[in-house]
Amino acid sequence: MAHNTQVSADTQAPPVTASLARFVAGHATRGWSDAVEHEAHRTFYNWLGCAIGAARHEAADAALAAVAMLEPAAQASVLGRPERVDMASAALVNGITSHTFDFDDTHLKTIIHPAGPVASAVLALAEVRGASGRDVIDALVLGIDVACRIGNVMYPDHYDRGWHITGSTGMLGAAAGCARLLGLDEARTAMALGIAASQPIGLREQFGTMTKPFHPGAAARAGLTSALLARHGFTASTRALEAPRGFVQVVSDKRAWHEASDQLGERFEISFNTYKPFACGIVIHPSIDACVQLREQGVTPEQVRAIELRVHSLVLELTGKKEPRDGLQGKFSVYHGCAVGLIHGRAGEAEFADAVVNDPRVVALRAKVQATVDDTIDEAAVDATAVLLDGRRVHVRVDHAIGSLERPLSNAQLEDKFRTLVVPVLGDAKAREITAACWRLAALADVRALTSLCRP
Amino acid sequence: MAHNTQVSADTQAPPVTASLARFVAGHATRGWSDAVEHEAHRTFYNWLGCAIGAARHEAADAALAAVAMLEPAAQASVLGRPERVDMASAALVNGITSHTFDFDDTHLKTIIHPAGPVASAVLALAEVRGASGRDVIDALVLGIDVACRIGNVMYPDHYDRGWHITGSTGMLGAAAGCARLLGLDEARTAMALGIAASQPIGLREQFGTMTKPFHPGAAARAGLTSALLARHGFTASTRALEAPRGFVQVVSDKRAWHEASDQLGERFEISFNTYKPFACGIVIHPSIDACVQLREQGVTPEQVRAIELRVHSLVLELTGKKEPRDGLQGKFSVYHGCAVGLIHGRAGEAEFADAVVNDPRVVALRAKVQATVDDTIDEAAVDATAVLLDGRRVHVRVDHAIGSLERPLSNAQLEDKFRTLVVPVLGDAKAREITAACWRLAALADVRALTSLCRP
Repeated sequence: MAHNTQVSADTQAPPVTASLARFVAGHATRGWSDAVEHEAHRTFYNWLGCAIGAARHEAADAALAAVAMLEPAAQASVLGRPERVDMASAALVNGITSHTFDFDDTHLKTIIHPAGPVASAVLALAEVRGASGRDVIDALVLGIDVACRIGNVMYPDHYDRGWHITGSTGMLGAAAGCARLLGLDEARTAMALGIAASQPIGLREQFGTMTKPFHPGAAARAGLTSALLARHGFTASTRALEAPRGFVQVVSDKRAWHEASDQLGERFEISFNTYKPFACGIVIHPSIDACVQLREQGVTPEQVRAIELRVHSLVLELTGKKEPRDGLQGKFSVYHGCAVGLIHGRAGEAEFADAVVNDPRVVALRAKVQATVDDTIDEAAVDATAVLLDGRRVHVRVDHAIGSLERPLSNAQLEDKFRTLVVPVLGDAKAREITAACWRLAALADVRALTSLCRP
Repeated sequence: MAHNTQVSADTQAPPVTASLARFVAGHATRGWSDAVEHEAHRTFYNWLGCAIGAARHEAADAALAAVAMLEPAAQASVLGRPERVDMASAALVNGITSHTFDFDDTHLKTIIHPAGPVASAVLALAEVRGASGRDVIDALVLGIDVACRIGNVMYPDHYDRGWHITGSTGMLGAAAGCARLLGLDEARTAMALGIAASQPIGLREQFGTMTKPFHPGAAARAGLTSALLARHGFTASTRALEAPRGFVQVVSDKRAWHEASDQLGERFEISFNTYKPFACGIVIHPSIDACVQLREQGVTPEQVRAIELRVHSLVLELTGKKEPRDGLQGKFSVYHGCAVGLIHGRAGEAEFADAVVNDPRVVALRAKVQATVDDTIDEAAVDATAVLLDGRRVHVRVDHAIGSLERPLSNAQLEDKFRTLVVPVLGDAKAREITAACWRLAALADVRALTSLCRP
């Protein structure tokens, strides 16, 4: 029978659920700066490219085969594919593909990839309702704010204990975004958040398997269905997020409640979103960036005797795979990242293909990369030196990698990234049309004008 | 960026995921005693009555209205209702209704209500496939074994920290049962368990709202869809349950790994399942039972000056509501439970109707019930004394309430309970037919012969 002890229950938590519900339901449309508005467009565009780019991945095939067993109605688009499925399943599959290449956005303060759960849910619902682009952007900004603020409340403890924070806060962002899109009032929005709070998704143990990208997809589905339930009067605790046996206290010992409310409606977390230039874990981005810079300084693979890296300990812990055998393993190899950075000058999804990982030229250069842990080097930095056969040493220091908040991708770089992902799936013409539609998303009267472009 | 500390990570855990997958995929059909086989039928029958009984509850209406927005295919039955929906949604809604009245089964060692997630998933899938009753019973026994064994590994810590353990182990049981029913091999069964492991559902904070019964429903849906994904090659960690950042270690500090494997295939947790005689939390069952016994000893409400209860502290903590205003509040009132026990001799769902809670006779008797905490009284016991107007004292001591493992409901009592739930929804004839079909479930060639009876 029941016991009643709990470690460090906090009975004085502020009314986070009610505050966020009021914010989501009541905040003015486009109630933020031009910079926030622009970042929302960049977030959406980057997410869409990632989702379309992975549309033909075997994870998408498997997920759609499972969904097909439910004989879904043709309500919403599977991005980059001909299938249409019910909106909950579309949210699931698009969330999966958006994270499959590990190429999506990152809220660096929490390492949440916020668009996966939020945009996947919001766009599927918006397509069914024929909602406007304006409403989608509003839902995206507010949904991401909810997910990332709850992330700020709990990070790093929540992540440290093993939750894949993207899925275990994402269901809240998805619920918030969908509640907004449905026009739910404050009370029902609180119910949507409450129902979602019971469904955190994601374990870090799944990294390296299809269940990692499943997390944002399942979070999108959970958030969307929570909002649908709330719309029809389904009830939940009004203190589901903050109560002693509510979400935050159950899944985190860190509970910085003020993060949920500080400058709410003034500071938007989407402002801190970043976009990956390289299709792998962010911890090796500085090293790849350094090798791309060495290449730009004229260093060629044939000249190299060794590449010496000094890195934060986390780099080798997470991505220390010396001899990767395939593309997936390559994403966990700082050595591979450096090799393709120097040889190809980039590390997009193509540079993590099995064939590239096993390319003799890449294998040979990989063997010349030496990484040493240096406690004076920040996680976001790297110190790299190319030692050449003629004895010269070429040194590069990266304090903030390309794609970081300090060195954000330009819109042109985002477009390049988008094209590498989307052209192989949908062709050049559609990639251009979608790009144009995304940059003017807020002015789109009906998002179906966009989603119809996203199918072959 | 990422941090790497974790509280007390256990890197030496045994291969729980693989062991349970091998067990589920490989165990012989009906590979257990007659007693286990019989208990499986009782578990199924009790679950079905609960689900049909709550079919018209507003929680079911709200859930189905949300599901309708997905335009589901008519694949599987919503028990007790005319609607047919896709099997994932059927698992969701039937799981909700089975727990709505708080009247379902209880694995007392963990207070898991195991049939809700497992049977709801298994029957929906079985209906779509036209599976046999034999296969359903096999899937139920094995699925419940998985959920309850993982519950044994983690209980009580996991529950204490705020998880509603029925939903946060139920997705594993549902995945196991559905993997079995789909005939998945050991490797894919492990994947099904792994995918499900990323989706624990349920916070105790939700108690008293519709989201409480949502937990077994959502767990059923999550487990079923995990099995479908695994069937089509979706991958997960092979150590999703036991790894340092796997399910158990993320959600519990208690990790009694041996509970997953002790006497696996010899001792079946379904043997320890019990069925509620009263439609409320199990903590007040001894008090209700005592008052029913006082009634049987001739005590009438009119004679009573006071009813003195000595109870475990948990009784008042969880069910100390002195003046409930409606049926739901009545379920959290030991005072109400005692009053209806003495007046009506029962405490089924009807005795928790709003009208009964506000019946002046009940209100008057409720005011005469006095409960005192006594640390010498076990959670499963009560000491009750009726003090009569003429000065006499009638004493009853209950050490094990009716419905406990020590005093299980008889099959006849289960049938009585079933009838009170099902006759108002489907009528007398169908209640009889369903009862007959349930007792011979293992011999049923196609469960659709049963599910077709469960619609009006």
